Amino acid sequence: MPIARGYAATDASKPLEPFSFERREPKEDDVVIDIHYCGVCHSDIHQARNEWGNSKFPMVPGHEIAGVVTAVGSKVTKFKPGDRVGVGCFVDSCLHCATRDVDREQYLPGLVQTYNDYEADGKTLTQGGYSDSIVVKEGYVLSIPDNLPLDKAAPLLCAGITLYSPLSHWKAGPGKKVAIVGMGGLGHMGVKIGAAMGADITVLSQSLSKKEDGLKYGAKDYYATSDAETFKTLANTFDLIVCTVSAGIDWNAYLNLLKVDGTMVLVGAPEHPVPVHAFSLIPGRRSLAGSMIGSIKETQDMLDFCGKHNITADIEKIDIKDINAAYERVLKSDVRYRFVIDMATLKG
Amino acid sequence: MPIARGYAATDASKPLEPFSFERREPKEDDVVIDIHYCGVCHSDIHQARNEWGNSKFPMVPGHEIAGVVTAVGSKVTKFKPGDRVGVGCFVDSCLHCATRDVDREQYLPGLVQTYNDYEADGKTLTQGGYSDSIVVKEGYVLSIPDNLPLDKAAPLLCAGITLYSPLSHWKAGPGKKVAIVGMGGLGHMGVKIGAAMGADITVLSQSLSKKEDGLKYGAKDYYATSDAETFKTLANTFDLIVCTVSAGIDWNAYLNLLKVDGTMVLVGAPEHPVPVHAFSLIPGRRSLAGSMIGSIKETQDMLDFCGKHNITADIEKIDIKDINAAYERVLKSDVRYRFVIDMATLKG
Repeated sequence: MPIARGYAATDASKPLEPFSFERREPKEDDVVIDIHYCGVCHSDIHQARNEWGNSKFPMVPGHEIAGVVTAVGSKVTKFKPGDRVGVGCFVDSCLHCATRDVDREQYLPGLVQTYNDYEADGKTLTQGGYSDSIVVKEGYVLSIPDNLPLDKAAPLLCAGITLYSPLSHWKAGPGKKVAIVGMGGLGHMGVKIGAAMGADITVLSQSLSKKEDGLKYGAKDYYATSDAETFKTLANTFDLIVCTVSAGIDWNAYLNLLKVDGTMVLVGAPEHPVPVHAFSLIPGRRSLAGSMIGSIKETQDMLDFCGKHNITADIEKIDIKDINAAYERVLKSDVRYRFVIDMATLKG
Repeated sequence: MPIARGYAATDASKPLEPFSFERREPKEDDVVIDIHYCGVCHSDIHQARNEWGNSKFPMVPGHEIAGVVTAVGSKVTKFKPGDRVGVGCFVDSCLHCATRDVDREQYLPGLVQTYNDYEADGKTLTQGGYSDSIVVKEGYVLSIPDNLPLDKAAPLLCAGITLYSPLSHWKAGPGKKVAIVGMGGLGHMGVKIGAAMGADITVLSQSLSKKEDGLKYGAKDYYATSDAETFKTLANTFDLIVCTVSAGIDWNAYLNLLKVDGTMVLVGAPEHPVPVHAFSLIPGRRSLAGSMIGSIKETQDMLDFCGKHNITADIEKIDIKDINAAYERVLKSDVRYRFVIDMATLKG
C-alpha cells in the first residue's frame, strides 16, 4: 500500500499533528493525485472537533484539493499523468442513484465524503486533502482549467461549487437582483460567480470593512447589516438571497428583503434552529430554501465557468505546520478569504 | 345611499350582533349583488376579535360571498342582473400594480380587503359578506359556474383559491406526490382540488377521524400525525406539502417528508414563529414557502376548474343568528367542513 503523509486530528480535543497512513493500491478506475494545495473549510474545523457529533478518528481533513495526476488505472480514459485536477467534497456515490439522477447525486443516499466517512467497504476511513497524495475513482476527479493557478483554484472545489450551485439553480443572471449575505470564504466566491453570471449583486455584510473588495469582485452595492436602515432601504428588493452565514441571524429580517416570489437559500447552517414567522413567507409567496455543494457534473461546469471568466478564490497560503493557528483565525473570520495549505511545506 | 343589513362586531370583546349600514351608490363600473350565502373563515374570527391587532370597528366580516347580481353600472360589460357571482378576499387593488402584474396582484401594495379595510378614499370602511347586499367594482366580481350551487360554492372564494393557487403554482398534477396537512375547511378543498388536478394526494391529519371523507374526496392515503411512525414511513416522499394548519406544529418533521427539491407551502399562519433547522432544508435542497389566496384572474380560473370538475365545499348551513356559536365550533375544529351563513335567515 502506498504511504501518504499528512496532518490529522487524532481526537476531538487535540490539535492537528503529523500523521502517516496508507492510501489504497490504485484500482483500474482510480486516479493517483499528487496534492499540491488544499483549502481550509470551516467544516474541517467542525468535524476535526466533532462539533457535528459524527467524527471518526484519526481524521485527515480537507476537501478542497488541487494537484497533478501521477498515475492512472488501466481503465481510466479521462485523465493521464501530468493533468491538473481537483477533488471536492465526495469521492463516491450510489452508482444506481447517480445513474438515475446524476444532476443531484449530492442529495441522494450513498454519498461517500472525501474524509470523515467510510469507503464502500464500510470499514476503511476516507482521508482528505491535508496530505501529499490521494487515490480517487476517475468519476470523482475534476479537471482544473489551465488558466487557473492550482492554489487559488483549490477553494473552488467546495466554496466555489457551494455558491455556484444555488446561483445557477435559482437562475442568477441578467436582470436578477441577488444578495450575498456574508463576505467570507463562501461569500466572496458568490460575489465573483454571481457577477460573472450577469446578476446585479449586493453584499450584505456585518460591517463595511470589506466593501472595497466586494465592489472589486463585481458587487454593485454593499450594505452593513449592523445598520438597521439597511433593512428598511432594501425591503422587497431581491429575487434571490444566498446566505453563507452560519451564525444564528434573524432570517425573517432577510426574508423581508425578497421581492414577491423571491427565494432565500441557506448554504451556511446555524447550529440551532432559527424562528421563522409564517408572515415572513406568506404575503410575498417567498421561499426559504437550502443548498448543498453540487454534483460532479455541476462541479465540472463550475470549474469550466470559472476558467472562462478567470475566477479563483482570494487566498492566504499557509505552511501546514500553521494549520492549528489558521483554524483559530478562521473562527475569528480573520482571513481574506480562504486559507490554502501549500503541501510543499509538508514535504520540506 | 342604499342601506344594508348584516351582523357586525362592534368591538373586539363583543359577540356579533345585527347591524345596519350604508353601501355606496353604485358607480358606473359597479356591480350590485344580493348576497345569498357567505362562508365563515377562521380569519373572520381573528379579525372580529382583533387578534391580529389591525381591526377596524364596526366590522361586518365575510369574504366568501356568493349571490346574484341585481343591478350594474352603465359601463359594466361582464355582468347583468340575474348573474350568479362571487366576491372573495379583496375588492380593489392598485391599478398600476395590477396592470403591471395581474397574476400576482394579491401580493402587491394597494390591495383593498373585502372587510376590515378602507376604500380608496382612505376613510370609508369596507364591510363584508355577513350582510344582505354588497356593491363591488366589476373587476373584482367573479362568475360562479351554473352547475355549482351557490351555498357550496361560497367557500371556494377563500378556502378554494387558497389551496388552488399553491397547488397550481407548484404544479400539482399527474406523477406528483402531494400531502395536504390538516383536514379542515382549507384542507378538504385541497384534497378535492389536488386530486382533480391529477396529483397523488395524501392527507396528514392529527387523527384518522376524517379518513373516510378524505378518501372520498380523492386522497390515495391518509395518515395520523399523532402517530410517530407516520414520520418514519413517509420520509422523503412528497414533491409538495401544503400546510393548512395554523397551530404551531414542528415544520422540521414535515420538511423531512419532502423529496429532494420538494417544497412545503404554508397557507396557515401560526401566531408565533416556528424554529426551523437549516439541516431540514440544506441536505435535500428543500424549500419552505408561503402562499396567500390568489389573483382575480386565478380565482376565476379556479371557479371554472371547479365547475368543470364539479367541486364544491362540504358545508354546514347556518342561520346568521347562530354565528357566535358557529365561531366557537370553528375554534374547536368542530365543523365538516365549512360553515356557510344562509342570508335568507337575515331577511326572515
